[in-house]
Amino acid sequence: MRAFLIVGNKAVTKPFNLNDLAGGAGRMDLLCRCVAQALFISHGIRKDVEVYLLLLGPPEPPKAILIKGSEVRYMAPDERNIAGIIRKALSVEAGKQWHKSSPGVYVAKKGLEELLDEIPYRIVYLREDGEDIREVAPQIYDVLFVLGDHIGLGEDDEKIVVEKAWKIVSVSPLSLQADQCIVIVHYELDRITGTS
Amino acid sequence: MRAFLIVGNKAVTKPFNLNDLAGGAGRMDLLCRCVAQALFISHGIRKDVEVYLLLLGPPEPPKAILIKGSEVRYMAPDERNIAGIIRKALSVEAGKQWHKSSPGVYVAKKGLEELLDEIPYRIVYLREDGEDIREVAPQIYDVLFVLGDHIGLGEDDEKIVVEKAWKIVSVSPLSLQADQCIVIVHYELDRITGTS
Repeated sequence: MRAFLIVGNKAVTKPFNLNDLAGGAGRMDLLCRCVAQALFISHGIRKDVEVYLLLLGPPEPPKAILIKGSEVRYMAPDERNIAGIIRKALSVEAGKQWHKSSPGVYVAKKGLEELLDEIPYRIVYLREDGEDIREVAPQIYDVLFVLGDHIGLGEDDEKIVVEKAWKIVSVSPLSLQADQCIVIVHYELDRITGTS
Repeated sequence: MRAFLIVGNKAVTKPFNLNDLAGGAGRMDLLCRCVAQALFISHGIRKDVEVYLLLLGPPEPPKAILIKGSEVRYMAPDERNIAGIIRKALSVEAGKQWHKSSPGVYVAKKGLEELLDEIPYRIVYLREDGEDIREVAPQIYDVLFVLGDHIGLGEDDEKIVVEKAWKIVSVSPLSLQADQCIVIVHYELDRITGTS
C-alpha cells in the first residue's frame, strides 16, 4: 500500500464554491491535484493507494477525508470533479468514526495526531532536507507519505510528524509543489516494482 | 531551454465555458494541468520553459498557443486560472504569426508540422516504448518534448513526429497521464542540473 496524507492549512471544512477553489475554498485546488496525482494513471486508478486529506480551515477544523483507490468510483482527474467529491464529503455529518460519503470516500472529525496513530503504515515525512528518495526507495513499502501544502506544516504539526516519522525524505533538488512530489514518489517506486 | 508540446486532439479552438473544461472544452483540463506542471515549482515559475499547446478541436483547428515561462505574469497553477488564460488567447484573432494575448502568452494558426519546423530545439517524442529517460537525461538540453493527450497522437501526426524526432523516450514502466510525464522529465533533468 502507498498512502499519502496532505495537510491543507487553510482548506475549508464546509461545502464550498466550485468556482473558487483557489480562493474562498482555501487552496482546495492544491488538494484536488494531490488526490489526482496520487490516484490516477492513464485511463485508470491505482487501487493500492489511499489518500488522506487533513483540512484545517474554517469553520470546523480539523476534518479528515479518506479516499481509497480500491473502492472509488466515478472520479475523473480534473480539479472540479474531485472538488465536487470533497464538497459532498463535507456536506455530511462528521463524527469520530469514518463515515462514507460516496464510493471509496470517507469523512471524519480527526486531527493530525489521531490520524498518524490510526494509519497502520510507517511514516515518511517529505521535506526538502531529507534523505534522497532514490536511495531509500528500495526500502519503501506500506508507507504513509506526509506532505504539507503551499505553506508547509505548522510548527506544532511538524513536531508531531517528525517525532513519529520513520524517515524524512527529499524528492528533488528544487522546492516543488505537493502534487509534483507525489508524482515523483510514485515514479521512483514504480521503477522498482514495475507497477503500483 | 526545456520546451513541451502537448497535442489536444479534442481541445476546442474558440472561447469555452470555464465550468466544463473536461467536457465541452474537449479535455482542456488536461492541457491546463500540463501547463501547470511544465511551468510551476513551489512559489515560482520556471523561466527557462516554453509550453506549446496544439488545439485540434472545433471549430477552427489547428490553433497553437505558446506560453513562455520567462514572460508570463499573473498565472496561478489551478486549472481554472490557466483555462482563463487559454480562453483569452482563443478570443483574439489568430493569424500565421504569433500574436500576444496576455503577458507571455501567444496564439497563432499553426499546425503540427509547422510548429515542429519552427521550434529550434531537438525533438524528443515521449512514448511508452522509448529509451529510458534516466539513461538519456545527461544528453538532454535544449529539447522539445512532444506528448499526446489522453488519446495519444493521431496516426498521421505520430508519423510526422517520429520522422523529425531525435529520440523516442519513455518516462515510466506504467502508462501515465501527460502532466505526470512532464513532472518526471523535469525531475530527471533537475537531478542532473540541480535546477531548471
